[in-house]
This record gives sequence, structure tokens and C-alpha cells, in this order.
Amino acid sequence: MPSFVFRWLMTVEPGHCDPSGLVSTRRLFEYFDTSTWGLFEAALGVKRQDFPAMLGMMPLVKVRLDRRKALMFGDVIAIASRVVEFRRSSFEVEHRITLDGHIAVDCGETRVWAVRAADAPHGLRSRAISAEIKARFG
Amino acid sequence: MPSFVFRWLMTVEPGHCDPSGLVSTRRLFEYFDTSTWGLFEAALGVKRQDFPAMLGMMPLVKVRLDRRKALMFGDVIAIASRVVEFRRSSFEVEHRITLDGHIAVDCGETRVWAVRAADAPHGLRSRAISAEIKARFG
Amino acid sequence: MPSFVFRWLMTVEPGHCDPSGLVSTRRLFEYFDTSTWGLFEAALGVKRQDFPAMLGMMPLVKVRLDRRKALMFGDVIAIASRVVEFRRSSFEVEHRITLDGHIAVDCGETRVWAVRAADAPHGLRSRAISAEIKARFG
Amino acid sequence: MPSFVFRWLMTVEPGHCDPSGLVSTRRLFEYFDTSTWGLFEAALGVKRQDFPAMLGMMPLVKVRLDRRKALMFGDVIAIASRVVEFRRSSFEVEHRITLDGHIAVDCGETRVWAVRAADAPHGLRSRAISAEIKARFG
Repeated sequence: MPSFVFRWLMTVEPGHCDPSGLVSTRRLFEYFDTSTWGLFEAALGVKRQDFPAMLGMMPLVKVRLDRRKALMFGDVIAIASRVVEFRRSSFEVEHRITLDGHIAVDCGETRVWAVRAADAPHGLRSRAISAEIKARFG
Repeated sequence: MPSFVFRWLMTVEPGHCDPSGLVSTRRLFEYFDTSTWGLFEAALGVKRQDFPAMLGMMPLVKVRLDRRKALMFGDVIAIASRVVEFRRSSFEVEHRITLDGHIAVDCGETRVWAVRAADAPHGLRSRAISAEIKARFG
Repeated sequence: MPSFVFRWLMTVEPGHCDPSGLVSTRRLFEYFDTSTWGLFEAALGVKRQDFPAMLGMMPLVKVRLDRRKALMFGDVIAIASRVVEFRRSSFEVEHRITLDGHIAVDCGETRVWAVRAADAPHGLRSRAISAEIKARFG
Repeated sequence: MPSFVFRWLMTVEPGHCDPSGLVSTRRLFEYFDTSTWGLFEAALGVKRQDFPAMLGMMPLVKVRLDRRKALMFGDVIAIASRVVEFRRSSFEVEHRITLDGHIAVDCGETRVWAVRAADAPHGLRSRAISAEIKARFG
């Protein structure tokens, strides 16, 4: 299993919350998108704006989310993301959000390694992930 | 299993899509929020703006999502939502999006029946779902 | 001044609101994006997914917004949109939201008529709006 | 005119962009919300999650936006925000986004100083801004 972990801290903004005052589920998925890009940027040493051309995109095909603890406006949360499995042209990412040392959210995502291809359905085509890329994740 | 199904059609807008041109995952969860409210509105005959006071809120605690087919700007999609299980104070909702008769997205959600309570942690407290409410879902 | 007006009704969803319970400003701009596309679709008789290829995109360069009355979850609002001026390659759109017959929001937007052009800065290039298109707005 | 200026840097994420590849207008307003909270936090020395109870909320009633230069995924932008005028219970904020030293976006907002009030229409009531608060902005 790749050992590289990307960790960062962020503060929940009011605009991330539903009228209930809790972080919306859809905003959690934005956090995880950001964290996935940050993970690849850190592991590969490539700035994220250079990814689409050089390395591909990472459309999400499966998700499993478990919210264990409510998150609210002003909470300072830690997000840790890692690739737990690489396959030929897809991979599994795990994200964990902690608040004050307690697990608040667990998420597992399946993403596809894809490149823009004008002649493919929906303009995207999956592509094999190179051994060189996989090696950068430890 | 409750038999009531809520079905509706909608068109994917440009603003629902990522730079990849595909509907973003977070927008899918907004579709499912809207569909869950629509489902309860239709089953209970109560307008949605009257729910928080009368019936509770429905925070989401678990999600399982499976994107089988890409959805893009301009696609006219059908969304069908149903409660597949009621427990004491939580329930399971299933959402299915179809495009041209083919399944594009499957989603299962676990939601909690909760009311605002100023003295509860995070201002929400779970509450038993009444037999009367359950009966409305067939 | 073009006379064509596009009118529609919609219901404010919980996910459109800030923790304050009011519709967020950013969601208002999503309403206006949707309404601008709807306006052109209705005036030109072209489905919106066919616009980017055939007719151009409509990036927004200036905005003036006036919120006169609060809008909340459950409000059924009417949106009326019209082009108030066409210039060579840009135009002015006005949007008005009413609630129970009272003006709730007024918005004016300046948008550019643009096409994708791989060799242009940012991949977009402005283009003259044809007399034929202008004529469809009355 | 108050002299206090709040400045910060951020990177445009893919999820902030429309299918055109440009930052969406609605995301710009999220940047400005974040920046307004940051400005008050810095000037007053109060953490933002303590604002709603202690100091009020800041609903937005008027906006003027001028996009001068396109912003895209990966751009590292600087945002500078300041209060340019305090009135009895409202104030004017100006936000400026620069990219590589050039002005990309100018925005002026009118916001109201409001507190939650269960008996007020929409649950919010405007309140005078104290001289003590105004003084903190220089």
C-alpha cells in the first residue's frame, strides 16, 4: 500500500454550511477534491494547473462517506488523504477529517485516470497509470 | 419496504458541471437533497418550508454513490427517490438517476430525523419517526 | 430595446440558503445564469446544450445587484429576464425577482458573446452578435 | 475613510471554475464573503465563529462587480479587502483581486449589520454599529 500521506488544516467557513449550521455534504466533496489534487501535487512535485495536460484528470466514479461527528462554522479541521490502491487506470483514495483528535468524517473514493480526448464519449478517455507515477507514492 | 416513489425530470445546467464538462459530485448531492425533500413533501402532503418546524430535519450521515455513466450539460435526466427502510430515528433513502432509460447514478443515503434543540450539541437532536409518518410511505 | 421577456417560477431550496436562512448571493447568480440561458433558448429556439458550439458562450464581465427584500427557503419566486441592449459583441441583461408581486431583487449584467478559441488568451474570443440573432429578441 | 486593509493569497481550484474554465461569478462572491469575515476578524481580534452571537451578521444588500481580467484554475491571486464607509447600521466594503500585479476584479458591497431576532421578519434585525467597532478599522 502506498505510504505517502497528504495532511492539511482548514477552517470551516459560514458559506460551507447548510441552514442547519452543519457543513453540507456537497462541500465535504469539494474538500476531498482539493485534497486529492494537493496529494498528487505533493507526491509528484507538479503544480496542479499542469496536471490536466501532463498527467490526466481524475473523475470520481464511486464514493463511500461516513460522517461520524458534526462539523460546524469555525471548526479548524485536519484532513489527511492517501492513495490506498493503484490499479491499471483507476485508484482508491481515502480521506479522513479529524477535529480535536477525533475522527469526524471518513471517505473512500474510486477515481479514474483520464485524459481529454475529443473523439471519446464525453471527451475523456482512461489511461494506464505509469509505474513511475505509482512509485512516487512510496 | 415502503413503496412510495418520487420521480422527477431535470436538465443539467452548465453551472452544475466541473471544468471537465461532467456534473460535479457535489452537485449530485444537491440533486439528492432536493429529491429527498420532494419525496417527503409528496408522501406527507406538507410543503417543504414547513418541515423544519413540524417534522424535523434530515442530516445525512452515510453515503454510498456509484456513477455508472457520465452526465453532461444539457442532459435531461430522470431522478427516482424512495425510502427503503425506516428505523427508530433514522432511515435509508435510495436515489437513481437515469438517462435515456439507462442507469447513470445510484446512491444510497442514511439520514437522521432530527429537530432543532438549542441545548443539544450542534443544536440538533434525533427523534423517533412516528408510525403515522412511516405509514404515509406505503 | 428588445421586447422579449423570459419568465419562470422556482422554489427556493434549503441548499440555496446560508446559515442565516437567506438565499446566498452566489446562488442568486446561479439563478441568473440559468435564466440567461433560458432566455436565449426561448428567443432563439435552440436547446442550450447546442449553444457553445453554435452560438458562443456568455461570460459575465459586470454586475450590479440590488437585494430589496429577503428571500428564504420555500419562497416561490418569479424571475423575469430580458436583454435591454445589444452592442457589437456584448449585451446587457436585466433580471428581476418578485415574491408575492413585490420586487425582491434587481440585477443588471454585462455579458460578452464569445467562442472557444484554443489560440486566444484563456481560450475564449469575443465575436460580433449577428443581426439575425438580435432580431429574435423583438 | 477607515485605513485597515486585509490582504491574503489563494489559489484558484478546479472546482471554482465553470465549464468555460473561468472562475464562476458565484465563486467570486464566496471569495468576498470569506474575505469580509477575515477583514473583521483581523480588525476586531475576534474569531469568526464568535461573530454571530457577539457582533452580528453581515447580510449583503447591494453589489457592483467589475471583472477586468479572466481568472483560471491554478492562478495564485491576491485579495485585498477594506471598509470604505461606515454608516449607522450598514457599511461599504471594497474587494480587489490582483494577478501578477494587475487588477483582475473590483467589487463593492453594501452590507447590513444585523443580529438574529426571532420576532423580526426573516429572523434578522439591523443594529447600530458601535463607535468602538468603527474605531478598530483605523
